Amino acid sequence: MIEVSNDATTDHTLSSDGASTALLTDQYEYTMLSAALASGYADRPCSFEVFARRLPGGRRYGVVAGTERILDAVDRFRFGPDELRVVSKFLDADTVEWLRNYRFTGDIDGYREGELYFPGSPVLTVRGTFAECVVLETVVLSILNHDSAIASAAARMVASAEARPIIEMGSRRTHEEAAVAASRAAYLAGFTATSNLEAVRRHGVPGAGTSAHSFTLLHTTADGPDEKAAFAAQVRALGVGTTLLVDTYDIKQGVANAIEVAGPELGGVRIDSGDLGVLARQVRAQLNALGAPNTRIVVSGDLDEYAIAALRAEPVDSYGVGTSLVTGSGAPTAGMVYKLVTVDGIPVAKRSSHKESRGGTKAALRTARGTGTAVEEIVHPFDAAPTVEDGLTVETLTTPLMRGGRRVSDLPTLAEGRDLLARRLVSLPWEGLALSQGEPAIPTRFALG
Amino acid sequence: MIEVSNDATTDHTLSSDGASTALLTDQYEYTMLSAALASGYADRPCSFEVFARRLPGGRRYGVVAGTERILDAVDRFRFGPDELRVVSKFLDADTVEWLRNYRFTGDIDGYREGELYFPGSPVLTVRGTFAECVVLETVVLSILNHDSAIASAAARMVASAEARPIIEMGSRRTHEEAAVAASRAAYLAGFTATSNLEAVRRHGVPGAGTSAHSFTLLHTTADGPDEKAAFAAQVRALGVGTTLLVDTYDIKQGVANAIEVAGPELGGVRIDSGDLGVLARQVRAQLNALGAPNTRIVVSGDLDEYAIAALRAEPVDSYGVGTSLVTGSGAPTAGMVYKLVTVDGIPVAKRSSHKESRGGTKAALRTARGTGTAVEEIVHPFDAAPTVEDGLTVETLTTPLMRGGRRVSDLPTLAEGRDLLARRLVSLPWEGLALSQGEPAIPTRFALG
Repeated sequence: MIEVSNDATTDHTLSSDGASTALLTDQYEYTMLSAALASGYADRPCSFEVFARRLPGGRRYGVVAGTERILDAVDRFRFGPDELRVVSKFLDADTVEWLRNYRFTGDIDGYREGELYFPGSPVLTVRGTFAECVVLETVVLSILNHDSAIASAAARMVASAEARPIIEMGSRRTHEEAAVAASRAAYLAGFTATSNLEAVRRHGVPGAGTSAHSFTLLHTTADGPDEKAAFAAQVRALGVGTTLLVDTYDIKQGVANAIEVAGPELGGVRIDSGDLGVLARQVRAQLNALGAPNTRIVVSGDLDEYAIAALRAEPVDSYGVGTSLVTGSGAPTAGMVYKLVTVDGIPVAKRSSHKESRGGTKAALRTARGTGTAVEEIVHPFDAAPTVEDGLTVETLTTPLMRGGRRVSDLPTLAEGRDLLARRLVSLPWEGLALSQGEPAIPTRFALG
Repeated sequence: MIEVSNDATTDHTLSSDGASTALLTDQYEYTMLSAALASGYADRPCSFEVFARRLPGGRRYGVVAGTERILDAVDRFRFGPDELRVVSKFLDADTVEWLRNYRFTGDIDGYREGELYFPGSPVLTVRGTFAECVVLETVVLSILNHDSAIASAAARMVASAEARPIIEMGSRRTHEEAAVAASRAAYLAGFTATSNLEAVRRHGVPGAGTSAHSFTLLHTTADGPDEKAAFAAQVRALGVGTTLLVDTYDIKQGVANAIEVAGPELGGVRIDSGDLGVLARQVRAQLNALGAPNTRIVVSGDLDEYAIAALRAEPVDSYGVGTSLVTGSGAPTAGMVYKLVTVDGIPVAKRSSHKESRGGTKAALRTARGTGTAVEEIVHPFDAAPTVEDGLTVETLTTPLMRGGRRVSDLPTLAEGRDLLARRLVSLPWEGLALSQGEPAIPTRFALG
């Protein structure tokens, strides 16, 4: 018996972020709906499945992110006067009337946020009438493709950083709303904090940030630059635990000025340019010589998972990552698709070309050895889990998310998703965490009978 | 005398998209503000400049997009109870009080939407007190970096397609709100239409779209697939001018079914997979043989500017472009920065490392020969345009956008930006439109005295 939460829909509709999501979609979803309503096929029971045909760029795993945002978007998929006015321009009156009363009443199952996925993993399954499911395609994919792309890149950075903290600071390099979702996905993947204040407000991600070069440059007078005045102002306002940005003029002088102004209890210095490994070593030695062995070194500036890994042996205390995080480090979209897999109990699939799909409603489980190391992903018919080899443990991957259009209760929180991913990463066979291009960390087996 | 529009701010604050933008920013903007207020430097008159140090990936030009969205974001940069609650957690009471009354009262100048830019072009200049300008950094960059990246990629696709129409259909491959902005940027760059209905509503971009594979698959019964039933349903609902998707099962049979059901007046067929060039030739021949010479061929599926160019010689009538558009075709962010260039009349610039900037408030013009072919971009002191060689025409690139915190009147519309870019692309020296990697199409000269 799956419990659904009471009034979840109402709560979300009333939230301050409660704008309709019904136009965040492709026009063809509604023209198909119109044709299906006219032909009498609109009410056929269907299953749609979201999956990725491959992982981008020879990566070894992907990370599911965005599920919570999808459920929220489904709750807010409603038509008001604004939305109806737009669709009325190209739809017949019956279809418009149908949309006026739209509310998703079907079931959604899927991988939890923070779960790993591999090629063919049935990441999300949406069941209901054709009409009520087809219209959700675009917004479901927008959210999953964006958030999973960011989380997948972020997880590689977190693994490369080992235990060192990473701050997400990429907002300026992506769309202003994508930035908020990217901060959330990065936190899910194990980043420590974000610069993005809307992510703090909306998702409870811890915030971080102190100052930029402009603050130092501001303290220029007719006599020239005055870095010490800038540092003194910052320390007065933010306390001695703050992080001073030391590379506006000359880094060695910047570090000397920082300790002169703040004293050896200074929280940290940030280096945002240059050869970060060499500079980190020099700055560490200088700080130690100045009696500031506890002053931390933060590095930023064009870091990605490879640069982070290359800094493992250097005296770096934390990283700031921007562009490469919000652009998915070369893979800005996860490439997931939303495919009709069952119509009225009949498995269906596109047949032309190499873009083949597997028909039928599916679920998945993952087996692991007693040591906890994952062995394989098994995709099976939705209602028929296979028996697995003795001695292997079984993790159910497909979990209920909505029943009858309402969220099930006790969905995992963002913090729980973060914990799940941390556990999952250590469950991969050792080569699964390699940054180099390769095969998926574990194979996917389709036990579809 | 520059006229400012009346009540523009009020209008926008009251719009349905009127949420505050004040948290779409980095925490450090506000900690810097706090330190500057405490040190007494917050009110110093400053200029910040947005520019790109380079064009991504050996491209030859960039396209400015997002200016109108920036002005809207500045209008909506206000603090209500929600925003104040978030910043109160890490700011002193004086700073919070200052933010409660925040309203940008400075001046903004910049390149028009649809204008070309090159390395070092002063794309946007924001002038006012340090305090009022510094807090806008993140949201200004988010918008310009996203929208310009998309418009820059889109313009290359439009140039490759020559006169053939391109429909934007990438919403599912990017964040759901980034999708709306991407549709707008693509239209600015010359795309014909979009699948995204929110872009239709919000920005007036023409909408397009008919059906997906799922609609054909829906018409599966116990007897098997029934493509003809699907086509008949679509033609009944959308008329014979619709476009039928013919590659769900077998393309040759699909085309035969399409004409059998719709007759030779069928508007179009779409091919979404396979070798699009070969298939377009075969389908064209088949349509002609079936007496349907006017039925158009639409191709889609992993198209980018290179694939579009490769199809120039094929009988393709229009293109649908998704992933490569919304991801900037390999360059998902424009890499623009927002740098403090003048403090109280004194030019300032970061000096360390290779990330150098040029101090001083600047503007730019572009010279052209009598034939209209652009010669060079000249960046000059804001209030001192240089004289140019006899026989060259001069185009002023830097135009007023806001005065005293209000938009100037008669800002160009989206349609006017689209026309401007179309004119600009033909003004480039011939090699400027090459898809291959190369130097910027015209040089930028810094005539800063």
